[in-house]
Amino acid sequence: MQNQHALMVEKLANIVTAIPFNRLLGLKLNHISAEHIELRFAMQQELIGNFLQGILHGGVISSVLDMAGGLAAMSGAIKKHPHHTEEELVEIVGKCSTIDLQINYLRPGRGELFSAKAWLIKQGKQLSFCRMELSNEENTLIAMGTATYLLKIKNSF
Amino acid sequence: MQNQHALMVEKLANIVTAIPFNRLLGLKLNHISAEHIELRFAMQQELIGNFLQGILHGGVISSVLDMAGGLAAMSGAIKKHPHHTEEELVEIVGKCSTIDLQINYLRPGRGELFSAKAWLIKQGKQLSFCRMELSNEENTLIAMGTATYLLKIKNSF
Amino acid sequence: MQNQHALMVEKLANIVTAIPFNRLLGLKLNHISAEHIELRFAMQQELIGNFLQGILHGGVISSVLDMAGGLAAMSGAIKKHPHHTEEELVEIVGKCSTIDLQINYLRPGRGELFSAKAWLIKQGKQLSFCRMELSNEENTLIAMGTATYLLKIKNSF
Amino acid sequence: MQNQHALMVEKLANIVTAIPFNRLLGLKLNHISAEHIELRFAMQQELIGNFLQGILHGGVISSVLDMAGGLAAMSGAIKKHPHHTEEELVEIVGKCSTIDLQINYLRPGRGELFSAKAWLIKQGKQLSFCRMELSNEENTLIAMGTATYLLKIKNSF
Repeated sequence: MQNQHALMVEKLANIVTAIPFNRLLGLKLNHISAEHIELRFAMQQELIGNFLQGILHGGVISSVLDMAGGLAAMSGAIKKHPHHTEEELVEIVGKCSTIDLQINYLRPGRGELFSAKAWLIKQGKQLSFCRMELSNEENTLIAMGTATYLLKIKNSF
Repeated sequence: MQNQHALMVEKLANIVTAIPFNRLLGLKLNHISAEHIELRFAMQQELIGNFLQGILHGGVISSVLDMAGGLAAMSGAIKKHPHHTEEELVEIVGKCSTIDLQINYLRPGRGELFSAKAWLIKQGKQLSFCRMELSNEENTLIAMGTATYLLKIKNSF
Repeated sequence: MQNQHALMVEKLANIVTAIPFNRLLGLKLNHISAEHIELRFAMQQELIGNFLQGILHGGVISSVLDMAGGLAAMSGAIKKHPHHTEEELVEIVGKCSTIDLQINYLRPGRGELFSAKAWLIKQGKQLSFCRMELSNEENTLIAMGTATYLLKIKNSF
Repeated sequence: MQNQHALMVEKLANIVTAIPFNRLLGLKLNHISAEHIELRFAMQQELIGNFLQGILHGGVISSVLDMAGGLAAMSGAIKKHPHHTEEELVEIVGKCSTIDLQINYLRPGRGELFSAKAWLIKQGKQLSFCRMELSNEENTLIAMGTATYLLKIKNSF
């Protein structure tokens, strides 16, 4: 059982870094538990949105929170089908799409190392709802959000 | 009057390309009128979010729509203060921040050339509300959104 | 064809007034066209949210915009299945549910007669996306919003 | 100190029931602590939105969550100014307005007694951000949301 979890974490970590835009952002999967998932990334010159203040671009924040929520939704779907084949995993991931994303920008995106956490609040047959938060290395809450994902899962799973 | 408009367009176009994250996205200001602003960008390998389908990352979409709305809010603030100095322009731009962003993902982000339009719906003393849309080169509507911006404008303007 | 449209309008108008909470709000269906639907309601003492200012409760605004969007989604679904039986109509209406609702409050809800308009932006197999606006009798825009609806439509339709 | 808290709770409870639309909904303030506020209301025939299923109107849910978030924002503002006069309290309450509201509808609004909780996530000088949840008497989570409020507080406080 533990091995299955480790395997899923490894697979999802690979998926995160395989997505081109995530590599630009420097996103890395840090943690998956039953309760939530966590992504991390470091400040880089390229991620700045406000050159006067040296803070994260709002789009970096929305991108990371969308990805974190999507991974929470995918990991929930994978757990529901623990005996998936590699092909089925690719299908779960490839067909997960964001429907609605909503972000509240609470404080300027200042910091060196950022953590994006996502909680899967409700997993339905087709729709998954997540809640997300972005903090910096001092645990300052920078943004929060919610997102809804459509999961197209084959009945045969 | 026409010259002033052309000057503002040039300045805002420079601001768009001066922001590091916007350069990653390849964003260019295409048009500013009394009614709306328009940004354009081309598909690139780096902007892909779903390697199975070759479509835009959801975060690219939210980033571009946030930037488009922000420019509509800024351009509204600048028009209210037509005789701004260069310093005041920098202050308007540097202090404009997104409060809330909301995106509806309508269709997969497929295409070669994308257009993000933003309309300034209400400009208040401190808050500006915008509506945004992303389309591809075939005028297929890919996403819509709304955003609220906080503008810190000196009374002395 | 015209008769079918008139019949659908009458049926949807009946549905609006059959819903208990809509009767509290005094909601009436005013118009359905290919482009949009419109609901109307009058100011009443019971709908006030701020007794100092005598303006609409924010919840009245969100309620009305949610209902307007839902009707736009339903009317789109009904048009797709023009030869529905009475039973099928009841099923379309009874199984339409809001997934996500988002409202921007632009100006105080002052006025005597309010109009809520909704546009069906995208109608998918299961999901419909709408955009909504609330204005008063002077055409002052009070609020705008977006909503996503889940439609459970039998394949046999 | 305890007495001041009790007094504020009593005043806010009076405000909740003084708002006409809240009386329609049957809203009552149940609890205010440093962490969150809680409103309660009972199912009534008038609050039904779907007559086939006998569930809460989506607008009831958005109304109650908006009110809960607004009270959390107000109570935060009042705590910042513990030595307010009655007049200042009226001003804090009368000038608190919702800017943006966003609701995710997770499950049908089925139940007899509903609880709406709101947490004040960030309190700024002018803007307050809240997170809200609606549950029934069996602790089933029916909806979640976020909202942003504008508070106009006199400097002289």
